[in-house]
Amino acid sequence: MTAFEVWAPAVSRVRVRLRPPGDEPNGVGAALAAVDEVHELAAGPDGWWRLELAELPAGTRYGFLLDDDEAALPDPRSPRQPDGVHELSATYDQDAFDWTDGDWTGRALPGSVLYELHVGTFTPGGTFDAAIERLDHLVELGVDLVEILPVNAFNGPRNWGYDGVLWYAVHEPYGGPDGLKRFVDACHARGLGVVLDVVYNHLGPSGNYLPRFGPYLQAGRNTWGELVNLDGPDSDEVRRYIVDNALSWLRDYHLDALRLDAVHALADDRALHLLEELAVEVDALSSRLNRPLSLIAESDRNDPRLVTPRAANGYGLAASWDDDVHHCVHALLTGERQGYYADFGSVDGVAKVLTGAYFHDGSWSSFRRRHHGRPVDRRATPGHRFVVFLQDHDQIGNRATGDRISATLSDRLCRVGAMLMLTSPFTPMLFMGEEWAASTPWQFFTSHPEPDLAANVAAGRRAEFAAHGWPPGDVPDPQDPETFAASVLRWEELAEPAHAAMFGFYRKLIALRRSIPELSDPRLEEVRVDTGAEWLTVHRGPYRIAVNLSDRRRAVALHGVPVDVPLATAPGFVYARQEIQLPAHSAAVVHCLS
Amino acid sequence: MTAFEVWAPAVSRVRVRLRPPGDEPNGVGAALAAVDEVHELAAGPDGWWRLELAELPAGTRYGFLLDDDEAALPDPRSPRQPDGVHELSATYDQDAFDWTDGDWTGRALPGSVLYELHVGTFTPGGTFDAAIERLDHLVELGVDLVEILPVNAFNGPRNWGYDGVLWYAVHEPYGGPDGLKRFVDACHARGLGVVLDVVYNHLGPSGNYLPRFGPYLQAGRNTWGELVNLDGPDSDEVRRYIVDNALSWLRDYHLDALRLDAVHALADDRALHLLEELAVEVDALSSRLNRPLSLIAESDRNDPRLVTPRAANGYGLAASWDDDVHHCVHALLTGERQGYYADFGSVDGVAKVLTGAYFHDGSWSSFRRRHHGRPVDRRATPGHRFVVFLQDHDQIGNRATGDRISATLSDRLCRVGAMLMLTSPFTPMLFMGEEWAASTPWQFFTSHPEPDLAANVAAGRRAEFAAHGWPPGDVPDPQDPETFAASVLRWEELAEPAHAAMFGFYRKLIALRRSIPELSDPRLEEVRVDTGAEWLTVHRGPYRIAVNLSDRRRAVALHGVPVDVPLATAPGFVYARQEIQLPAHSAAVVHCLS
Repeated sequence: MTAFEVWAPAVSRVRVRLRPPGDEPNGVGAALAAVDEVHELAAGPDGWWRLELAELPAGTRYGFLLDDDEAALPDPRSPRQPDGVHELSATYDQDAFDWTDGDWTGRALPGSVLYELHVGTFTPGGTFDAAIERLDHLVELGVDLVEILPVNAFNGPRNWGYDGVLWYAVHEPYGGPDGLKRFVDACHARGLGVVLDVVYNHLGPSGNYLPRFGPYLQAGRNTWGELVNLDGPDSDEVRRYIVDNALSWLRDYHLDALRLDAVHALADDRALHLLEELAVEVDALSSRLNRPLSLIAESDRNDPRLVTPRAANGYGLAASWDDDVHHCVHALLTGERQGYYADFGSVDGVAKVLTGAYFHDGSWSSFRRRHHGRPVDRRATPGHRFVVFLQDHDQIGNRATGDRISATLSDRLCRVGAMLMLTSPFTPMLFMGEEWAASTPWQFFTSHPEPDLAANVAAGRRAEFAAHGWPPGDVPDPQDPETFAASVLRWEELAEPAHAAMFGFYRKLIALRRSIPELSDPRLEEVRVDTGAEWLTVHRGPYRIAVNLSDRRRAVALHGVPVDVPLATAPGFVYARQEIQLPAHSAAVVHCLS
Repeated sequence: MTAFEVWAPAVSRVRVRLRPPGDEPNGVGAALAAVDEVHELAAGPDGWWRLELAELPAGTRYGFLLDDDEAALPDPRSPRQPDGVHELSATYDQDAFDWTDGDWTGRALPGSVLYELHVGTFTPGGTFDAAIERLDHLVELGVDLVEILPVNAFNGPRNWGYDGVLWYAVHEPYGGPDGLKRFVDACHARGLGVVLDVVYNHLGPSGNYLPRFGPYLQAGRNTWGELVNLDGPDSDEVRRYIVDNALSWLRDYHLDALRLDAVHALADDRALHLLEELAVEVDALSSRLNRPLSLIAESDRNDPRLVTPRAANGYGLAASWDDDVHHCVHALLTGERQGYYADFGSVDGVAKVLTGAYFHDGSWSSFRRRHHGRPVDRRATPGHRFVVFLQDHDQIGNRATGDRISATLSDRLCRVGAMLMLTSPFTPMLFMGEEWAASTPWQFFTSHPEPDLAANVAAGRRAEFAAHGWPPGDVPDPQDPETFAASVLRWEELAEPAHAAMFGFYRKLIALRRSIPELSDPRLEEVRVDTGAEWLTVHRGPYRIAVNLSDRRRAVALHGVPVDVPLATAPGFVYARQEIQLPAHSAAVVHCLS
């Protein structure tokens, strides 16, 4: 039996148009083909329309005809769009995949290291299957969870993923739903968990037919598009659309966590916020599946409520991204102060975030021209509730040329940055290629087929950076396939000595974090940081992370008697009573007697 | 010394134009008069402009000239607008009033009964001084706090008060700032506290010059107007404008509490919500002044976070309005089911709100076409945190003809409603005249001098009710002075037997609430309600409030042995073992042996 169900509360009639595999594709505006069948769905009292037919082969193309439409629309909950987001959907048997991860017991965030990758640019192949070929590299690196940028269906072959319009479908060029399942299965086989980036705060600019079906949108816009209707009339089903989607990824695709894009852009005035509702549902699923499931919010709100337990009136998410840690370390190491880096860059700022998670904890934000954030309860909030990174897709890709920190910063300082992140009380995350200081940039790329949209996106990008003094010609054209091609990792670099050395350092650093529990101790209250003009020392139990930021050799105080240096970013350190002599731009993990 | 200070971060120059008392008025567009003086203010680094002059007599008219303006604008923090909101401001010595309430130690909400009044229609005089003449009536009635509708400056003489534009000034026709102080002083002399209704969610449609001074507004609208900038760039000063205003009422005007209008319309995405910030500031002031100060939110969000203590991650307000209690009782007694009453009206609904405060505690709201609200923690939340009422200005005035419940409901059922409210665990509030079932309606009235605005408001009102089937001619014209006049209380009614009897009943009921502590016991978990098709019994310790809703005599179960009936809404009850026989449409407080 194949069931068709769709929520369309305000239409007079819903039919499904079917086409056997082999006769696709067919645009939404295309005429009925001779092979098509059309069946009427029955209206339910709840705004849903339903029909059950004898079992159809997987891959049967179908679309819904609303009212007296002659053009079929893709299913809002389409599991597959083999021919693109403007084309017919395809039936898919969610239970047919041959999973081999029966022994998988899950992977929680405490103690974990994340690795963010974009399927399309992680490998030259740009597919899930090509990515699988590189998983052993990640095992060797020592990370615990792979986080993939959004794979929901979007128009055009190449995109970061945030222009998704069919949230239940997996971008077909990556390998579609079975491709994602093969990827997750292969990760689990290697002990790697998988985090999926999901976007619920807006819909992409092309292929969004949801408003034809129901009031998925409401008045108002955020940075990226029209607001999703989370609290207006008929919003229960819209929320259900989101909640079911989240649960489906975790249940049907065996994912271990979801990264919720830009939750500050979710406009929800209900007493029960969508995030709390999601967390409740996901926690219940975790119990049913008997494996940990995590929700990780990206938020610029600096609001501890996101990760405060629900028993204490928080939303009870597993973690939230903490851009402040990035900004503090990035600005300190690079000296950059442009745009949103204006308030960052001091040694004391790094000390503040390492002990309190937020730099803006109610403090003045020059960029926002207002006070911002509120303090984290250091006693009650474990550091693993904050995902931190020296680099991520946004902090690289949203730069004019998509240059990684390693393009301008010395290898020495890159290592210092990595050491600060990977000895922190937080949940550290790497961005693909960071582990070998990849020479490839990661640029903003799109592939909108619509000429107007393509031109607008490209012009918008140029205008954004022109405002900051960038000549248009220096900003890569997001629509140019070369911009995408330039962003693909060059794995052959790993064989080059400098890159191999960086990779070796990251391996050692991650292994050290795992072997010395104090280095991942999440207790913020236990972190102490001594600071000076060009140095800092982070206390992690009997260990110190001593950092020399100056361009000359100097002594760094340890407040302890050094007995061993398990790892240093550079050779040439010498330790003595209560201090360590460090070469310029270097850092070391030092084991001390108290 | 007279100090002039104004925040105007984006102007090139600020001057103050002064005019001695006696030469007013002068519209904002009027030319400089021969008697005017103009002085230059000095720019501070914080966007503020300042000037100190030798002491000027109170009442000196002044206005600010921004940039090279020739027209002076009223001071955003004007304490007086003697000539109207479009005219010059007047200096005012906030410390000159001769207070006599030195012994006043404040009045907190627990155990209190509120009385809501509108200064303009409470008496034929329509002033604070005229209202003072009626305070002894309120003392006789037995209420604890008087709540006055907004008195901030608005354009035109007559208005509910929600069209205010100069939040620091007191509407001059009511008596201006000194009038308000005389009123508060007189209340305190009689043991009455005073609550002021304040509006921070929008500005009125006429006389709002704030955008000339700074970014007080931000993109977007709520039901009533443009959004106040609470979280955008430069919003710190806008929040300060609000916080300082709230503190000024409590400190300078000796108010005991503020009622915050429609807080669900405050668009604030900061991690520290304005309401929490306000509560923190007001609690600190309470400590400094050594008397209780309360913030009471009007909210349609049904979100317990408003009144949850800050230690438990709530905002820590003293109370919020609870419309659900009104809707449940109103719909039950009247049988009305139109509009937002759709879900209300069952006996069990009344039981639900009496034990849990919210009817919509996550339940389906037909009116909103979505689920709504979340449950109150009955163990941790005292009932006095919810202000309840059988009638209030909105529930009367937002009806097409502004008819009170007593215009259509029998005296008998009005008394039943009053008994349910005044024996509830909540903070009950009466609306002026309710205590004698005043025959006067309380209609929506305005007095916009601008013809276009006046026409739009009148047309909008008619259109709103036309949508519900009201012929335009049946909806009073808000601009017609007769609409206002019809809404003024007729105190002479109190001498008429039926009205006097109702007043006597309210007096006894309030006295009973005070004399029997169980009747105001705020513990929600201790409330139990037995229900039947046309009856209910509320358990309040050894007391029962037995209610017969049917139109015939009937027995109501008590689950206790009655020994006394301290108060009944109607004569003719007879009690026996475990039950009481009640006449049609009546209720009684029954003292029982358990």
